Amino acid sequence: MGLLGVTWTTHLRKRLSLTIRFLHHTSKGQILMSPSLASVDLPDVWSPISSCQSVPAIHKSFNEQTTVVLDGKLIAMEIRSKVAAEVRQMKNCLGKVPGLAVIFVGQRRDSQTYVRNKVMACEEVGIKSLVTALPADCAATDVQNAIMRFNKDPSIHGVLVQLPLPQHLDEEKVLDSVCLEKDVDGFHPLNMGNLALNGREPLFSPCTPKGCIELLIRSGVEIMGKKAVVIGRSNIVGLPTSLLLQRHHATVTVIHAFTENPEKITSEADIVVSAAGVPNLVRGNWIKPGATVIDVGTTPVEDPGCEDGYRLVGDVCYEEAIKVASVITPVPGGVGPMTVAMLLCNTLDSAKRMLNFT
Amino acid sequence: MGLLGVTWTTHLRKRLSLTIRFLHHTSKGQILMSPSLASVDLPDVWSPISSCQSVPAIHKSFNEQTTVVLDGKLIAMEIRSKVAAEVRQMKNCLGKVPGLAVIFVGQRRDSQTYVRNKVMACEEVGIKSLVTALPADCAATDVQNAIMRFNKDPSIHGVLVQLPLPQHLDEEKVLDSVCLEKDVDGFHPLNMGNLALNGREPLFSPCTPKGCIELLIRSGVEIMGKKAVVIGRSNIVGLPTSLLLQRHHATVTVIHAFTENPEKITSEADIVVSAAGVPNLVRGNWIKPGATVIDVGTTPVEDPGCEDGYRLVGDVCYEEAIKVASVITPVPGGVGPMTVAMLLCNTLDSAKRMLNFT
Repeated sequence: MGLLGVTWTTHLRKRLSLTIRFLHHTSKGQILMSPSLASVDLPDVWSPISSCQSVPAIHKSFNEQTTVVLDGKLIAMEIRSKVAAEVRQMKNCLGKVPGLAVIFVGQRRDSQTYVRNKVMACEEVGIKSLVTALPADCAATDVQNAIMRFNKDPSIHGVLVQLPLPQHLDEEKVLDSVCLEKDVDGFHPLNMGNLALNGREPLFSPCTPKGCIELLIRSGVEIMGKKAVVIGRSNIVGLPTSLLLQRHHATVTVIHAFTENPEKITSEADIVVSAAGVPNLVRGNWIKPGATVIDVGTTPVEDPGCEDGYRLVGDVCYEEAIKVASVITPVPGGVGPMTVAMLLCNTLDSAKRMLNFT
Repeated sequence: MGLLGVTWTTHLRKRLSLTIRFLHHTSKGQILMSPSLASVDLPDVWSPISSCQSVPAIHKSFNEQTTVVLDGKLIAMEIRSKVAAEVRQMKNCLGKVPGLAVIFVGQRRDSQTYVRNKVMACEEVGIKSLVTALPADCAATDVQNAIMRFNKDPSIHGVLVQLPLPQHLDEEKVLDSVCLEKDVDGFHPLNMGNLALNGREPLFSPCTPKGCIELLIRSGVEIMGKKAVVIGRSNIVGLPTSLLLQRHHATVTVIHAFTENPEKITSEADIVVSAAGVPNLVRGNWIKPGATVIDVGTTPVEDPGCEDGYRLVGDVCYEEAIKVASVITPVPGGVGPMTVAMLLCNTLDSAKRMLNFT
């Protein structure tokens, strides 16, 4: 075993203790199975090592027949029903419901769909939603005024600005002006800093990354100690996903457009989260046999045969990847519904915090 | 070439344009060669890829004779002399100098050395420094009061709390109370969030990570597109170093105590920054021939033969690594002096910003 054996034993002991904490945590009947970040924080105890030997990896053989296709719709529905129950309870006790405000600038078709989905999801669970739609050429002050109004409105517990914004608007300034306590998208830099920093707890984690972690945990995919590759480093998905995975003790590599040999790096990962927004970027030979593949890509591609005139396409070449992965999410119906469910969770959490309702 | 060839050409074009921007930037006579983060931000332009082939890597043969040992002392001295010149200029123009306040709790020997080094470095360049030393068993309010006093003091432009704090003090609360505009250590979560977020600029980047990047840039080590491994994920070194490397477009993997086969992952990296605080963790066979090795480890090891009764030991087995790496930093005399130099830069920058002195 050598000294690495010591590290290994310590490692396993920690895993066990963490598992116990997870079970303890989830036994309280909380909506999400993902624990608070601070509760999964562990000290990095490094054993002194005087020789370096590889610990032999145990490769389980992968059986193609067992590939699990994660049903994001179903999991999201379960979560939504729990949110609905808590909203009802809040209404019964306080006579109040959570409120979400959405500010939508312009007329992007995909954004319109996203906003519509969010509003419908709110309705379904009893969360009040208000949408302020502004024309694509509106002034920055129009956006600011809408945000300020909702920041002050005590019936609103979540304020989100649908991204992307038209180019003439300063996204940074807009996001900074969302009140921290209502930043249900988790895009405020202070929330992001607290997400990055070990030992800190952001008021909100961004919805899509949170949905990815929730999918992994609910599917029994172990994150700790696993090699994870996040493809894409956007502020709203790639970056926070990598930070979340790292806080869950994965060994994370972030791949971006300047990465050399992304296919080689990806093919060594146990968990692949692709959020590049490039259809079919991730081919079958990018995937390690038995890996878990979470496809966040949702690129709208024109398709006159579809109701909205377009359909959403993932980053992953699904037909190839399903032959190699052990767990995979489809597009649509994978991460997308989870994003909306997480938004409802964040809005509910915010209302509970602001109304001091437990 | 295939479609990957297209990506490649775009990549090279961007590198060229970035190099031009770097040159333009550094021609203004700024103290640091590392450009502002926003100026190195680039859009992630992904080319659609329909087939995936490896681009053949060109392996340069490594000649042991050419290993460059980075002289952190010398580089830091150059930087300090430029800081001193700007401080003199500020004094001549405004009759004011930058001021740094250090709050030091307890009596850790290594912390005492660090504080003494910072104070001496301030003196040397003409920055005013004030140290508030508090007993190890002081109350949290004592620390808060000291911070608040310096936050309000207009002659102070940087406030830092020497870490680690005694266990009874809440590090998070302490760091949060340092005024954002005086957070020269860059540990405030809002600064960290802005460091993480593409397109944002923190008021201050943490000193050690900033020093590592500065060392790399000054040594002509290319970061963009390179595989970088950061060993350790502390809030004060590992995390911000990984964020900075990523913002400089490296493909970054963060290794921590739960990482399986860290030696294998590290041995594939072009740039290794080790900040685990474990002496001799990184052996020669962890290093890819020709890689750049930055050793941030500074573990105090008792040594009655030394003036202070201890000496600082790095994470890297230097004798082994120097035979393999093309560029390496020694401990002491590598990153350590850079950290202090970056603190002086941050304090000067803060004073210039607050006094509107350009």
